[in-house]
Formats: sequence, C-alpha cells, structure tokens
Amino acid sequence: MPTGSDELSLIDAFVAELPHAKTPFGPGDDAAVLPRPKGQTCVTTDATVEGVHFTRPAFSLEDVGHKALAVNLSDLAAMGATPRWWLCALQVPRGFTTDDARALARGMAPLARAHGLTLVGGNVTSGPVLGLTLTLGGESPKPLLRSGARPGDVLLLTGPLGLAAAGLRALREGQTSGPEVDAQRRPLPHVESGLLARRFARAALDVSDGLLLDAWRLARASKVALALRSDWLPLGSTLEDALQGGEDYVLLLAVPARAVDRCLVAAAKAGLDWTPVGKCERGTGVFLDGRPAPPLGHLHGAP
Amino acid sequence: MPTGSDELSLIDAFVAELPHAKTPFGPGDDAAVLPRPKGQTCVTTDATVEGVHFTRPAFSLEDVGHKALAVNLSDLAAMGATPRWWLCALQVPRGFTTDDARALARGMAPLARAHGLTLVGGNVTSGPVLGLTLTLGGESPKPLLRSGARPGDVLLLTGPLGLAAAGLRALREGQTSGPEVDAQRRPLPHVESGLLARRFARAALDVSDGLLLDAWRLARASKVALALRSDWLPLGSTLEDALQGGEDYVLLLAVPARAVDRCLVAAAKAGLDWTPVGKCERGTGVFLDGRPAPPLGHLHGAP
Repeated sequence: MPTGSDELSLIDAFVAELPHAKTPFGPGDDAAVLPRPKGQTCVTTDATVEGVHFTRPAFSLEDVGHKALAVNLSDLAAMGATPRWWLCALQVPRGFTTDDARALARGMAPLARAHGLTLVGGNVTSGPVLGLTLTLGGESPKPLLRSGARPGDVLLLTGPLGLAAAGLRALREGQTSGPEVDAQRRPLPHVESGLLARRFARAALDVSDGLLLDAWRLARASKVALALRSDWLPLGSTLEDALQGGEDYVLLLAVPARAVDRCLVAAAKAGLDWTPVGKCERGTGVFLDGRPAPPLGHLHGAP
Repeated sequence: MPTGSDELSLIDAFVAELPHAKTPFGPGDDAAVLPRPKGQTCVTTDATVEGVHFTRPAFSLEDVGHKALAVNLSDLAAMGATPRWWLCALQVPRGFTTDDARALARGMAPLARAHGLTLVGGNVTSGPVLGLTLTLGGESPKPLLRSGARPGDVLLLTGPLGLAAAGLRALREGQTSGPEVDAQRRPLPHVESGLLARRFARAALDVSDGLLLDAWRLARASKVALALRSDWLPLGSTLEDALQGGEDYVLLLAVPARAVDRCLVAAAKAGLDWTPVGKCERGTGVFLDGRPAPPLGHLHGAP
C-alpha cells in the first residue's frame, strides 16, 4: 500500500461509515488512548482471510465485514464482556477501492452500533488477498473463563448448532440465500447471552470450531469431563454438522446445578433460547451419550 | 489452518519462546483479561506481510519477528507509553512448521524482554503468505499526541534518518550485512526516548514513512507549520533517504522552546542522541530550508 493520499482516502472512507472515536482517543495518532475501564478489560484478536474464511463473490464485501466483526464479538460474548472499542488492521489486494472499503465498513456498522463498539484505530497495508485482523476490547466486572466449570455443573447452549456448516455446503453448491446461508455469511454473536451468563455461569466459551472440539477445550481448561446428550442438542442441521460443523458462534456455558432453573427463566424472559445439553463430571475429556468423543475439529473452509 | 493438534502445537511452540501471561490473563481463553492499568492505556495495531514488508530469504524468520514487534513498539514509543501487553495474530502459509513458529518468536523475545512486554493472546490462521498482525498495549500517565505542537516549539529527532532506506537498497543489491542492512532488518524502537520525551515534549510521532510525510502529519494534527533545516538533519544516508526513505522509527518531538536545553541535557545524560532539526511556526504544511516540501511518502517495498 503506497502511503499517502491513496491510503488516507481509503482510511477516511472506511472510518466515516463507522461509529468512531475522535482524536486523541481514536484513529489518527500513533496509538489510540482508551477511556478508563470500569471493570476488567478483555481483549481478543481474530483474522478473516480471503480464500481461507471466505471467497468472493460467495461473500459480498458487506458479508466479509459483518462476519469479521461478528467472530471477534463472539469472543467477547464468551467472556461475558460488554464490547467497548476495536482496532481494524486491513490487508487489501491491488485494485481495492475506497468504495470497497466503504462496503466492508457498511457490513460492520450495524453490529458495531448494536453493541456499542467504537473504532479507535487501525492500519492499512497491501497484501496478496483481502484480510481483516480485528482486535476488540470489552469490559466485565468478572470475566467468564473456560477454566471455571466444576463437576455437577449443567451445560447450556445459547442457540442451535449446525446451521453454519449447512450454509457452507449450500454456498459451495451454488445456493445464494436461505437461513443456512445467512448463518454462514452473517452469524450473530451472542453478546446478550454472554452478559446474562455472567450472572449465572461459572465458565463459558464460544462454539466456533464445532461442539466436540470446543467442549474438549472447556473440559481441558476446567479439568472436568463433559457429558453431552445428543438427543438434547438443539439442531439447526444434521447431528454431524452440530458436532463438528463449527462457525455457529453460540456459547457453551457451565452453570451450577442449583442456579439452572433461575438461569433458564431469566434467559426465557430476555427472549433467549438456551438449552441444557449435558453436565460436567469428574474426569477428563468429552463423552457423547456415555461414549468418549474425540476432539474432531472444524476445518474452516472457504465457500 | 486446520484447527486441532497442528494449530495447537504451533501455538505452544510460539508461546513457549516468549514472556507470556498465564491464564486467565494470557493465551488460552476466548479473550485475555488485562491487569488493571495504572495510567492511561494506549493501543496500536500494525501488520507485517510477506512480499510487502519483507521477502525471504533476505529476511530470516527471526528478522521478521523482530521487525514486526519493533514497528509496533515504535508506535507506543511515539505515545510516550510504557509497553505492557500484546496480542499476536499469525497468518501462516502451507508448510509453516513449529520450528518456523519458534524462529519467529525467537526474533521477538529479546525485544519483548527488554521492554517488559507480555504476550496475552493471539490467533493463528492459514493464508497465502506469512503475515503478522500485532496489537500492543502500553500505559502512560499522559500520552503524547500528534496534535500538541504549538508555534515556537522546537523540533527534535531522537536518531539519524535514512539508514533503513539505504539498507533496503543494499538488500536488493544482494548485500547481506552491514549497519544499513541491520537498520532495515532489525530496527530498534525508541522506547526509552519516548519515556523521556513525555517529561518535555508536547507532541510526538514516529518517523516510519519518511520525514516529509510524517512531519506533514504532525503539522496537520497540530495545526502548525513545521520549518525543517536540511543542514541540521542527522543523516544516516543521503538527504533524499532521510527525507523520504522511511522505516527509521526515530521519533519526531515538539518541545517548548524554554524546555529544550534541559531536555537535551537529560537526553545526553540518558545516553540518547537527540538533535534539533527545526521549529514549529504559525501556518500549515512543511517547509524545508524555507521552501514548501510536499508530503512525499515512502512506498514500503519488499527487499
């Protein structure tokens, strides 16, 4: 990316579409100065790369922008954090225009507005393909960790699994619309669920790489075994998609048994559809219907 | 990048080489939880991409790691911030091994240790070429901004200009060692200068894209004119390299005239070689020896 007017007009076009901080707190200095946090600060970074996480034209630039921001918001949601600020590092291929930058930002703006997220800085460089590496910061009085689950805790999912994997298949088969395709291109991060979860849950993570792999991560971090019931799983597609599909960005929560009823009532009152899917036990690893389930991962594939 | 054991062993190898936080504050959860800041928090993000900022084998993986971290540290230095924590998003091409990840990290470790920088999280994905997008956080009681310069302030540079551009040319011509090549491959961020500068300076930025372009940025942000003297510039190479070369990562400071003598004495006592190069005046734009100097930028070129 030649520095100078091209880069500047591209940055200006991008920033103008988004809720952003004013200098000295926002874009335009060597670093952004953050407002003082009220609780503890959680930070996360995640990259979305052309040919790896998406292809064009299966994804529009608006889709790419939306999804890049959504997957990072999902990480904050898993911490029970209130989104606050973000940085956007763009890698743009030759021929990428200010209109393209605007389209990316337009895909991000509704999510940023909905979740109170302020752009504070970023970086633009050239690269062989389009890539977005975002860093998000959020606040929580008491962040939810993967390591907090205890034997006896009940496992809850904050939404159905498998729809995004079905959408990936549909896109590969040339389908261009429908709820599966929407789930794949425009996943909605469970930020509200994360905020509610911090009142009840002892541990959480977002199911980005498939239930079996992410459950295994929770089990390992908490030093417990997770016993899942396949007939309890909220399915958006086939059982295989649900177990290994990935990219659904629902949260897996571990809630103390005594709090589960209150927790489910509170979720229902908030219009959230949470489902018990199993429980934590002494031991290690993940069990599905009583049988050991290997941590089979999701290969992020470009549609 | 297939999630699962490959990604995990690569992350483990990388993290093991570096000063890193333990969970819940470090790698391993959906987001990192930061320690409470003492001052104001400054955050910056910058990408280093193969074919854009470096090529192999002109750069070893250690060089790549060093430079990626150095350019981000330079942004914190420009804010007068004490480096605290960082996130590392890696994009790795097919065939990138755990040994490669270790080499990258080994290039970063000395800088991270020297500046008290703790790795708290990151992300690994595959991509067409090697790319590193880093996010760094630092603290300052009073961050230095680009917008603080006032007419009458004296402009100081914290080191010589042009060496990195000469190094880029040398690498292209097949040279593999020497001070120019070192300056290009292993730039040293002026973190100590930034910390000292916050006692004296009203404005600062790092000269990453060439003096003329970066001086223009400072002038614009502060709404002043910058009058530079070519015969005062500390040259590491030709005047043209110094003015437009970029990648030297020295700091340009604006210091109130009454504080300049004390400031230069303090810098000399600290073993820092700071040089007056001009002053701020009423007006707009950048003037070199009294003539308007256009914001000619540095085209980051891969050696």
